[in-house]
Amino acid sequence: MSNVKLKEGVNKLTAFAPATSANLGVGFDILGLALDAVGDKVTLTKRDDGQIIIEKINSVTGLPLEPNKNTASYALQKMCEELDISCGFSMQIDKGIAMGSGMGGSAASAVAAVVALNGFLSNPVSREKLVEYALYGEEIASGGRHADNVAPCVFGGITLIRSLAPMEVINLPYPELYCVIIHPHLQVETKSARGILKPEIPLKKYVEQSAQLGAAICAFYQKDIELLRRSMQDLIIEPQRANLVTGYYQVKEAALKSGAITATFSGSGPSMLAFCDSKANAEKVTLAMLAMFNKHGIEADQWISPINPDGAYIIEDK
Amino acid sequence: MSNVKLKEGVNKLTAFAPATSANLGVGFDILGLALDAVGDKVTLTKRDDGQIIIEKINSVTGLPLEPNKNTASYALQKMCEELDISCGFSMQIDKGIAMGSGMGGSAASAVAAVVALNGFLSNPVSREKLVEYALYGEEIASGGRHADNVAPCVFGGITLIRSLAPMEVINLPYPELYCVIIHPHLQVETKSARGILKPEIPLKKYVEQSAQLGAAICAFYQKDIELLRRSMQDLIIEPQRANLVTGYYQVKEAALKSGAITATFSGSGPSMLAFCDSKANAEKVTLAMLAMFNKHGIEADQWISPINPDGAYIIEDK
Repeated sequence: MSNVKLKEGVNKLTAFAPATSANLGVGFDILGLALDAVGDKVTLTKRDDGQIIIEKINSVTGLPLEPNKNTASYALQKMCEELDISCGFSMQIDKGIAMGSGMGGSAASAVAAVVALNGFLSNPVSREKLVEYALYGEEIASGGRHADNVAPCVFGGITLIRSLAPMEVINLPYPELYCVIIHPHLQVETKSARGILKPEIPLKKYVEQSAQLGAAICAFYQKDIELLRRSMQDLIIEPQRANLVTGYYQVKEAALKSGAITATFSGSGPSMLAFCDSKANAEKVTLAMLAMFNKHGIEADQWISPINPDGAYIIEDK
Repeated sequence: MSNVKLKEGVNKLTAFAPATSANLGVGFDILGLALDAVGDKVTLTKRDDGQIIIEKINSVTGLPLEPNKNTASYALQKMCEELDISCGFSMQIDKGIAMGSGMGGSAASAVAAVVALNGFLSNPVSREKLVEYALYGEEIASGGRHADNVAPCVFGGITLIRSLAPMEVINLPYPELYCVIIHPHLQVETKSARGILKPEIPLKKYVEQSAQLGAAICAFYQKDIELLRRSMQDLIIEPQRANLVTGYYQVKEAALKSGAITATFSGSGPSMLAFCDSKANAEKVTLAMLAMFNKHGIEADQWISPINPDGAYIIEDK
């Protein structure tokens, strides 16, 4: 028997979930951050026939409307099942995050759905639980249980996932940072970007990479930009994925030469993330990265965003 | 040409270097801490014939007296060479750290030697440089360039080595901790403990271990004992080395059951390190660990020590 009760008189709710960037170079599958630039919205309307239906997906085409194939509706289904919520919901998804942009679009839709549902509950579940539910959606999108987009999407800020079972997410402090996201118009699917990774890594590389991860976490706590610059080195994943993106190392070099603290893949790519210490610098770095992609004949979109400290939330009615 | 000058009128100096414990479970080859319990002393007396001679090693037998085989004199030789110091020194080593006790005895002697020499210089070198010189000694003892004992021995506290070249050591903050070191009377050499490690690790384990390392560093910064307890998990090295020590997992379990925050290898073993949050608790944990080793017919020595915040230093004449 479930103790979950729905609030009286609430029939429709909209939640916003921000774009995110996962891995951050040193933290493959464990680090991620929330962006302020864009996000997805999900509106849920209560039904009484027990069905979960996607009514509409705005702004993008090609996403599945079948409830058990779409990340948002699948996460919602699982949360309803586990909490024994049987009324059913109609769902409208407003995609603010471009498809394949490396900014966690599938995670954001799933998170917006479960955060919206949480708003219906008299006893809302914890943020850790929301991550778990949203992960069901992420699983059908990426083929694995990776919370590095979902966790910052729910919690905001920069997050470290210590454990998936039990779910444990740690919010890291951080200095003032501006994130540049560059989305080159190349097709790289998360599943194939994961497929090319060797299943084993040398112990020696593990030690070197651990040292960089450890130092980067120290840099976040100490808000030490120069230590961050030295330690944001990815010795394991980047060398294996760089050739998926034409001009990757030249674009990275262009970013660093223009003053970026680091430039790396956003998630599994092809998008790239650069950290900058000011907005002016972020603009300079953006232009340099775009110019280099252009030199390789590649069009790209760009976003500049501070880190979003809040994560997903219910949009209150006016 | 060297700019190094020796201070006038200084002919004899003694330095103390503390015992250390390396790895700390989650930080293979990169984390270490300094102990307050014991340490080695090295006394240098200036000569004028250019020779480096070991006059005496007190308290232990079996250490090499040949200057290029002993960790202390070899480190001193290298430092003299690189700084172009040609007078020569006589050396007396007072070993406070028991041989093979897993408390960084070879590192401590090397560090005491280079710290003593630094006291002769009008322009002393940096602590990073001292780590580099002492590492030459560590290399002949362990067959590799591992600074995880040398760094905390020089710097004190808990240290993370981000990079060996250039040398970069980060001092971590930490909550009040009492360390228990248990030295079972078993022979395990550093070189062979290293030799059994597989040269590759699964990517999946790397991700899980990175998460624990990252969380442990967060726990040190946040001085969060419970987070430390959850995150001090070694999924990579411990399973490979546990069978080198009879009863390892039972002793570990006895420690944890008695309230230890973590129990793991001290360095490459056979000694074990446990973290406790009070002295009373450390005494309880010590007894439990000793009793379990005894049950396996193994004698053991024990030390209880807070973390030494200062590292190696020159002992001033009275």
